[in-house]
Amino acid sequence: MSARSFRPLWALEEIGVPYELKMLPFPPRALARAFKDVNPLGTIPAFADDALFMTESAAICQYLAARYSPGALDVAPHEADFGRYLNFLHFGEATLTFPQTLVLRYTHLEPPERRQPQIVEDYARWFHARLRTLAPLLEAQPYLCAGRFTAADISVGYALMLAELIGESERFAPPIAQYWHRLREREGFLRAMQAQENAARAQNVSTVPSPQLRP
Amino acid sequence: MSARSFRPLWALEEIGVPYELKMLPFPPRALARAFKDVNPLGTIPAFADDALFMTESAAICQYLAARYSPGALDVAPHEADFGRYLNFLHFGEATLTFPQTLVLRYTHLEPPERRQPQIVEDYARWFHARLRTLAPLLEAQPYLCAGRFTAADISVGYALMLAELIGESERFAPPIAQYWHRLREREGFLRAMQAQENAARAQNVSTVPSPQLRP
Repeated sequence: MSARSFRPLWALEEIGVPYELKMLPFPPRALARAFKDVNPLGTIPAFADDALFMTESAAICQYLAARYSPGALDVAPHEADFGRYLNFLHFGEATLTFPQTLVLRYTHLEPPERRQPQIVEDYARWFHARLRTLAPLLEAQPYLCAGRFTAADISVGYALMLAELIGESERFAPPIAQYWHRLREREGFLRAMQAQENAARAQNVSTVPSPQLRP
Repeated sequence: MSARSFRPLWALEEIGVPYELKMLPFPPRALARAFKDVNPLGTIPAFADDALFMTESAAICQYLAARYSPGALDVAPHEADFGRYLNFLHFGEATLTFPQTLVLRYTHLEPPERRQPQIVEDYARWFHARLRTLAPLLEAQPYLCAGRFTAADISVGYALMLAELIGESERFAPPIAQYWHRLREREGFLRAMQAQENAARAQNVSTVPSPQLRP
């Protein structure tokens, strides 16, 4: 199953920067305790670029875009859509991904006696209500901002990917479903999926039973 | 009670940009339904700068910093701490604030029959475990990155403010408590608190019963 680490991986493949990918069993907090020496938070992704170390997936995408993809995946402060770009980078994580992690946790990751149907319902509803507000925009244009595919689409796109993995994508409004379809057909997305699969196989990482994207 | 809108207000006061502040009863989704015409998400803040409209509080701070405070509240892509800056901007919201909104919701905002002690415990623990990782850094330096106060401190600082408002600040490690003390003594912070209070009074907004910061 693709964790938030998929965001930086997708950005790296869109940009074409060389990288090294280390896979971990999920959740590493429980299954790879030595990882705490790498990242005291115990969360993934854990991203290093020389002396820089980062843990927030949407921030890593913005960093990679600004440093390695100016004028393309990045939207610069002098561009008209700079503010919108920043907003969608955050929206994809704080507003669209976090609520889904509650749905995932209290339907699948917790033992049966700790599952919480009310929380699952509260935050599935939250997610769909927030997501729906993107439909008018995505009916009018192929990407979120700046007239091109940017790191903001990776931030929001991962939230749509997660929704499909946890069984919430059937409720997407048509413009959202079409947008998600456009994103997952991108060469960079497909290369990132392949890179993730190859690395898991080569490193013999046993992951938790993984829902698959529908073909 | 200070909602996430306090972040952009604090940034505006630190920078000294003129602005107009409209207060709303909280939560506006329930208490000010016409607000949906301004912001279809129903969330606050709702921020406008000419044609630009934004809703993510940490993103608004980064936008204000980049546009109106280069070299001061902003950290530019060419600076060594650019990546760390982005990371803390996101960390303050996605990792430190969202879990606290669960604590707040299921202890105070939901009716008694929908309160969820397990969720409150799960996410209070989550918050403190993540927050603790900042202690070594804040023992060594006064601000999070770039050797100065930046928008990243506003993102994380608001999470500490919220923790105090919901009664979770007693458990701060000493370097975190001292950092929070440094932040709330800033002129910009004090001006933002005053501006919020003045606007609420002038606009006669009845808010939900508000815990207060301790003097």
